[in-house]
Amino acid sequence: MFAFISNSLFKPFVSVANNLPWLSKKINAVAINNTVNVCRHRPHPWSTVHDYVSWTSLTDQSWSARHLPPVNKTGLPAPDALKDFFIRKQNTQQLCKKSTCLFPAFAQYLTDGFIRTKMPNAGEPDDPLRKQNSSNHQIDLCTLYGRTPEQTNQLRTKSEAQGTRGQLKSQTISGEEYSPFLFEPDGLAEKPEFSKLDKPLGLDKYPDPSFRSKIFATGGDRVNSAPQVAMMNTLFLREHNRLARALETAYPTWDDERVFQVARNTVIVLFIKIVVEEYINHISPAPFRLLADPAVAWNAPWNKPNWITTEFSLLYRWHSLIPDEIKWNGKSYSAPLTFMNNQLLLDAGLVRAFTDMSTQQAGRLGAFNTNAGLVGFEVKAIEQGRLCRLDSYASYREYVSLSKPKTFSDISSNKEVVDFLAKHYASPDDVDFYIGLFAEDTEKNSPLPPLILRMVAVDAFSQALTNPLLSEHVFQPETFSTIGWEAIQATGALRDVLDRNSPKGVGSERIGMTSSSWAYS
Amino acid sequence: MFAFISNSLFKPFVSVANNLPWLSKKINAVAINNTVNVCRHRPHPWSTVHDYVSWTSLTDQSWSARHLPPVNKTGLPAPDALKDFFIRKQNTQQLCKKSTCLFPAFAQYLTDGFIRTKMPNAGEPDDPLRKQNSSNHQIDLCTLYGRTPEQTNQLRTKSEAQGTRGQLKSQTISGEEYSPFLFEPDGLAEKPEFSKLDKPLGLDKYPDPSFRSKIFATGGDRVNSAPQVAMMNTLFLREHNRLARALETAYPTWDDERVFQVARNTVIVLFIKIVVEEYINHISPAPFRLLADPAVAWNAPWNKPNWITTEFSLLYRWHSLIPDEIKWNGKSYSAPLTFMNNQLLLDAGLVRAFTDMSTQQAGRLGAFNTNAGLVGFEVKAIEQGRLCRLDSYASYREYVSLSKPKTFSDISSNKEVVDFLAKHYASPDDVDFYIGLFAEDTEKNSPLPPLILRMVAVDAFSQALTNPLLSEHVFQPETFSTIGWEAIQATGALRDVLDRNSPKGVGSERIGMTSSSWAYS
Repeated sequence: MFAFISNSLFKPFVSVANNLPWLSKKINAVAINNTVNVCRHRPHPWSTVHDYVSWTSLTDQSWSARHLPPVNKTGLPAPDALKDFFIRKQNTQQLCKKSTCLFPAFAQYLTDGFIRTKMPNAGEPDDPLRKQNSSNHQIDLCTLYGRTPEQTNQLRTKSEAQGTRGQLKSQTISGEEYSPFLFEPDGLAEKPEFSKLDKPLGLDKYPDPSFRSKIFATGGDRVNSAPQVAMMNTLFLREHNRLARALETAYPTWDDERVFQVARNTVIVLFIKIVVEEYINHISPAPFRLLADPAVAWNAPWNKPNWITTEFSLLYRWHSLIPDEIKWNGKSYSAPLTFMNNQLLLDAGLVRAFTDMSTQQAGRLGAFNTNAGLVGFEVKAIEQGRLCRLDSYASYREYVSLSKPKTFSDISSNKEVVDFLAKHYASPDDVDFYIGLFAEDTEKNSPLPPLILRMVAVDAFSQALTNPLLSEHVFQPETFSTIGWEAIQATGALRDVLDRNSPKGVGSERIGMTSSSWAYS
Repeated sequence: MFAFISNSLFKPFVSVANNLPWLSKKINAVAINNTVNVCRHRPHPWSTVHDYVSWTSLTDQSWSARHLPPVNKTGLPAPDALKDFFIRKQNTQQLCKKSTCLFPAFAQYLTDGFIRTKMPNAGEPDDPLRKQNSSNHQIDLCTLYGRTPEQTNQLRTKSEAQGTRGQLKSQTISGEEYSPFLFEPDGLAEKPEFSKLDKPLGLDKYPDPSFRSKIFATGGDRVNSAPQVAMMNTLFLREHNRLARALETAYPTWDDERVFQVARNTVIVLFIKIVVEEYINHISPAPFRLLADPAVAWNAPWNKPNWITTEFSLLYRWHSLIPDEIKWNGKSYSAPLTFMNNQLLLDAGLVRAFTDMSTQQAGRLGAFNTNAGLVGFEVKAIEQGRLCRLDSYASYREYVSLSKPKTFSDISSNKEVVDFLAKHYASPDDVDFYIGLFAEDTEKNSPLPPLILRMVAVDAFSQALTNPLLSEHVFQPETFSTIGWEAIQATGALRDVLDRNSPKGVGSERIGMTSSSWAYS
């Protein structure tokens, strides 16, 4: 898409195409194919298991795939010495003009579903666990449904009683539906019914029972990491249960299992629709609106089995998007005070939470702009890149058909960034992948810099549109029922789902990833 | 292929094409695409888990996929009442004109690697375990290397000592190399080093320590079922270790792991080459020689993730190919006496075993021709089809673009078969899938009847050429090393591998699946 649409010669056609569905569909297919074709298609020859091609590297998905083979580099600065690249110069955060806080909230919820690098308990930078993952390598909403059948079973009502068939367990608070709590009301003992769920990551840092008692029992171990993420999960929980109720009424002979499965089919697909039609269109620098048209992938040479790469797990660490201060329900909080704090969501309610996130600007992605509380994670990311012996930033530019930088000034127009790079690296060819990603200027009209943009787009299309539910003989009304099929057609953005899942609807509130003040330049 | 090449208009081009490599390659691609395009491409919407499409049916490969959804049929004959369809009328076995016993030996070894229906201990016909499998859904030579990393580890020497790197464990008997024995010499205690291997199936019926003490420790639980199968496994064991020795010599800096992996890459690919270039060409009714050209699959719309179907697990039960009497090393044995009897292989040695199998005719595949000792398995197959509520034989004909039979005589030219069908079924539309498969006449110039032929060919190409080792960016000399790459190029048939893995070579012995007396008509 970006390879093609950002071409200015193409611009005059955009407004025409947006009004002609058949032309729009054709341009959409060309744009998506051009986007994916900037680099090699899967299967990737290599994974993190071996330095060479092996049956294990081609089949064992507990190791992360890799776009480029490992290299041996010497003379690179110590990861900790690169910390300053992320720390603010004047301690003033720069904000992103295009994106609201709904953008990082969605990005985190989305990627937590399939970027699942294993985290060693001890945290040694060279622990080989960091080369492995627990991903299903699909957009399967495992954040909501669990990663494994055992987890899914524990999250379901599994009840044949009228009015409960096919539903996910939930509770009502102040007239609104949420996931059940993981702990007993005292915040100490975990409910045995949730014994198979992945434990919420980072909870050990929040021993306060008032936090713990509000932790949700759900499929994802990062859903509780911030109330914005729990907010997303709550939205899709409600949509699942809404669909289950409608299916049960429409198909009274269906058992719990069938109602559940058809509702899940539907929710996964409408989630993917939002990924492409809201999220990717927000990221895209082009005003042309891309469509989640499954047919584009059916016969595409790039429709090959998904496999999340170790590069992908790094390029999605967008810590600088997180603003220092976040308003919840009229009150401002320092970001770290919101972490694992679901009370903020419960107090606001779902519509207010979405509205709050849609009316605050996200941070600007890039150098010298990470919240102090998150800088440690940046160093860990550099360490992971070194552990996996990733090739340089310059090599990855070349890999996705972008020009290789000849000077440090080719990487950034920001003198401070250029000076930093020149101070720490002997040549532009040496710059670490993780540093280069965030050293670039953001692309015009996009919240992302060019290399991230390109690699995100390749994987977004080549791993979302390959979902088996979108495949040629599955993406049919029967798979979703009339009720599910209509819900899919009626969904292009988070706002659509929120409107039908809040007691009073959304009304005229602004819900979106793109700031109200944004205009394409 | 069969859809295209059996077209007689095409025949005049065959001899020309066989002599022009570029034309041959083009025709090969057209033939393979035509073969695979007779039916729907994967992903299959259904598996045996649900009657409808679900995330589980699309992702959990422990359930078998299915080509057609389940149906409810009533009024079908009891499976046991269909036993007579397989039992000989005059107790005289009919033989196949085209195939030697090397054909069923290879077919069994090949399919045991990926058709892995779970077998319930108790054997109830409606045990839902029969809907599940333990397959990796790949041609990965798990018969040799094991299904799991733990099994692979136990089968390897895992030694860095000079002369042993990268090898599979083996032993020398009478100057020839074989897998080690699973049991201690007394035939009673299993060696602890092989604790993770799948137990040999059916061994409980052979408690005699003289049989048990000769059971090989290897990856497949059916490798020991007959000495012909152990013979195949021995061949590829030797090829692996031969390559490992050559690699270790050529690349003295490579460790055990790398030598092993590169040898395995090579052996899997040369096995697939034999599947297409010897086995499929033997099955094919056309004199045109099909090539295992990986490029055919690279951009093909049918290149979608493999998933073995429950139909595939049934249509490959070729019991009637097994002759009643089999000669081993100059002596004739009743077939059941050869089961699990590896002593026959050890006494003959590998070349003699291959020669013996290549000079005896296999049974003719079809009705009234199964060895009495195997008829019970035919009934179990019918039961499995009923358990999975398979659609009728007629529906599967239609599914793969063959005509639907209007009368019983459309199915077979054999009056006894027609009478049997008419006696047991109300109409040709009712005939069970498993019965119809074997009721058909064999196709002219092929050992297989048309429906089996077509379904075997679809899955052979669409699941063999999709192997990740054959993918565009993996099928390169670097993946196999020069030694491995040359071995692949030098292999088109079992004979090639046998010749380089027997102390004195093959000489002028005939080694092949096609009988020496065979001529295309």
